[in-house]
Amino acid sequence: MNQSYLKMSKDELKAQYDAVLAEYNDIKTKGLNIDMSRGKPGSDQLDISDDMLKVFDDGNFKTEAGFDVRNYGLLQGIPECQKLFADLLDVEPQNIIVGGNSSLSLMYDYVNQCMFLGAGFTPWSQQGKVKFLCPCPGYDRHFAICESLGIEMINIRMTADGPDVSQIEEYVKDPMVKGMFVVPKYSNPQGITFSKETVKRIAELTPAASDFRIIWDNAYIVHDLTEKSDDLLNIFSVLPERNKNMVVEVTSTSKISYPGAGVSCLASSEENIKVILKRLTVQSISYDKMNMLRHVKYFKNLDGIKAHMQKHAKILKPKFDAVIDTLNADLSGLEIAEWNEPNGGYFISLDVTGGSASRVGILCKEAGVTLTNVGATFPYGKDPSDSNIRIAPTFPSADVLKQAVKVLTVSVRLACLENLIK
Amino acid sequence: MNQSYLKMSKDELKAQYDAVLAEYNDIKTKGLNIDMSRGKPGSDQLDISDDMLKVFDDGNFKTEAGFDVRNYGLLQGIPECQKLFADLLDVEPQNIIVGGNSSLSLMYDYVNQCMFLGAGFTPWSQQGKVKFLCPCPGYDRHFAICESLGIEMINIRMTADGPDVSQIEEYVKDPMVKGMFVVPKYSNPQGITFSKETVKRIAELTPAASDFRIIWDNAYIVHDLTEKSDDLLNIFSVLPERNKNMVVEVTSTSKISYPGAGVSCLASSEENIKVILKRLTVQSISYDKMNMLRHVKYFKNLDGIKAHMQKHAKILKPKFDAVIDTLNADLSGLEIAEWNEPNGGYFISLDVTGGSASRVGILCKEAGVTLTNVGATFPYGKDPSDSNIRIAPTFPSADVLKQAVKVLTVSVRLACLENLIK
Repeated sequence: MNQSYLKMSKDELKAQYDAVLAEYNDIKTKGLNIDMSRGKPGSDQLDISDDMLKVFDDGNFKTEAGFDVRNYGLLQGIPECQKLFADLLDVEPQNIIVGGNSSLSLMYDYVNQCMFLGAGFTPWSQQGKVKFLCPCPGYDRHFAICESLGIEMINIRMTADGPDVSQIEEYVKDPMVKGMFVVPKYSNPQGITFSKETVKRIAELTPAASDFRIIWDNAYIVHDLTEKSDDLLNIFSVLPERNKNMVVEVTSTSKISYPGAGVSCLASSEENIKVILKRLTVQSISYDKMNMLRHVKYFKNLDGIKAHMQKHAKILKPKFDAVIDTLNADLSGLEIAEWNEPNGGYFISLDVTGGSASRVGILCKEAGVTLTNVGATFPYGKDPSDSNIRIAPTFPSADVLKQAVKVLTVSVRLACLENLIK
Repeated sequence: MNQSYLKMSKDELKAQYDAVLAEYNDIKTKGLNIDMSRGKPGSDQLDISDDMLKVFDDGNFKTEAGFDVRNYGLLQGIPECQKLFADLLDVEPQNIIVGGNSSLSLMYDYVNQCMFLGAGFTPWSQQGKVKFLCPCPGYDRHFAICESLGIEMINIRMTADGPDVSQIEEYVKDPMVKGMFVVPKYSNPQGITFSKETVKRIAELTPAASDFRIIWDNAYIVHDLTEKSDDLLNIFSVLPERNKNMVVEVTSTSKISYPGAGVSCLASSEENIKVILKRLTVQSISYDKMNMLRHVKYFKNLDGIKAHMQKHAKILKPKFDAVIDTLNADLSGLEIAEWNEPNGGYFISLDVTGGSASRVGILCKEAGVTLTNVGATFPYGKDPSDSNIRIAPTFPSADVLKQAVKVLTVSVRLACLENLIK
């Protein structure tokens, strides 16, 4: 157990500082060049899906109903892929639109539609200044969608059970609060799964806006790292009738099959699906149904997906462990940082004290390790307490990762010591 | 040669009517069910690309520069696919964004962006009532984009050389005229290729709106049916500096490889590409790069694409011939209809006299042949002279097609005779 920096004398801190600085300078000489900025699967993870590319060797391109997936048509997706995603999300197939390779696009296009064409009513943008609630730290690309479309973002605290619903309940009294993005399972970056109570309270919100929409980005729905996976309550199962159009769920196989060439889907009420299809009919003739059938032929069913995810977990768990072990060894007891040990997802979230996260980012960069931009996990890229660092351990190999995390812990200690000896 | 209906006496017309009605009723008893509504390739055309699905048997998923296409990244597309499309469109690779499976989506997303976020300036929608010029008959999905986004459409006459540029020159004096969709080669539905003079005059327009944009939908760029393919002048080669941002060109492999699973692209000025990428960065992480590399590995280069297109032509030419031959045999000389004999593209356009196109559509439908909705080739689905019928001969087999066109010519004769004997 390390001794707490907060209990050290000035002299002890100075000695620590000198030692850590020496260690940092030593690392710097190594000329590392490691990218830990994005939640990208490693190439060993990409390999495990490659048999998927052989499923058409049988020359059969037809759906069960006899539709040739190579041709135009079936805008809502092929029925067997709707079924696969319906089973994954525990909804009905008719409530699913199967998309292209990007659930981000499904989200962007939907929010764009709500803004300028309407969620089935007057476009949000014609009602006044649109606001979104942003549980944070969160996913930078959700915030980017809001910012690019001119949506004002309001920070919502994250707790160990998910977003602070009391705050949300207050804010949704404003009819110009039109929506909220959340990652309900293994949240980005904290790995938090919303508790049953949180999901229920969200489902039972009473927003002033009848066109209030929650984008339920279930990106890590089957992305467990261990046997003890988190349980997420299916929000559709607890939605009261009055809120039946409130939730739009998305997910994708980006981190199941291929990040660049997976299949995405959107699930929502019959009315929302109708509104979305009306726009989609104009926007596209159909998404890539060959890729849909490729996935269906390969995974076959939900069990197939789950078995496949165990292969990913086997690759990822040692990487997460490497990070956690190093954080534990180097930072525990110092009282300058806290971190999570997620049961799934793609990130480890590290909070440092004293507004030193930006400084850590700079120190890491200078030592050859690129982190996700510090601040990126908050709206407008501004972390109010400058404390959150997102660690994305999936892409580097375990060996490289160990080096990178060492750079990180040394940088954290150095940045905090700089503050403490001031 | 048939005798002209216009030169027949009332009695002769009545006799004709009785004979044609009998023929029609006879056909009706056959219980046909033929869909000629959309420009869909036939399944024999789909088969010719299937070797493309084996290109990854070599286990190589990397671009020349070593980028693994299975992973996230390369939003603008893989360099070798940019190059392939650049060669196809005769532009520079850096002016290309490679998209997903749908050039329609590239167009929709761009026009949507211009409307609500701007073409690099104040959003169109914030400047007043936006108008688009619509050469027609034209592609119904272009009109649908305008209509769904609240853009007012202005009909522009088509001539044998392309749209009537004098009309366009007049209309672009209005600063709220913000754009125009065109299919410059083998236009949908008339198969007209814009003359060099027309392309030059379009390039040299002096629109009042500095954010006037032409969507140059080059969907049939290499889709020749015969040896004597039409030549289209590359509009970028004659764009004056002042109009360098005026043209956004799109094309796709939808009718080269797979309609549902091809690759699309967009070409434009550096400034436009920058504006589009700014939005795209928020909308998506990357398009499907595996499909890009699949196409590049299979076609290799422009010659590969051209050779491939000859296989399509071999399948399509007899179908087009079957339609033309039947039209010639059944309708020539009657002076009730005109049609084109295109050198490429996906359609034959038939114009009937006397405002009888809608009636022809109904007669065909009742006899079991579904045509493209009559009127669909005009903005708001309204053909002012109710004369245009779009024939899509690609999907049915040649035998079925012959039956369908017979239904069509009998229906044309019957509808016109109904008028003439009134």
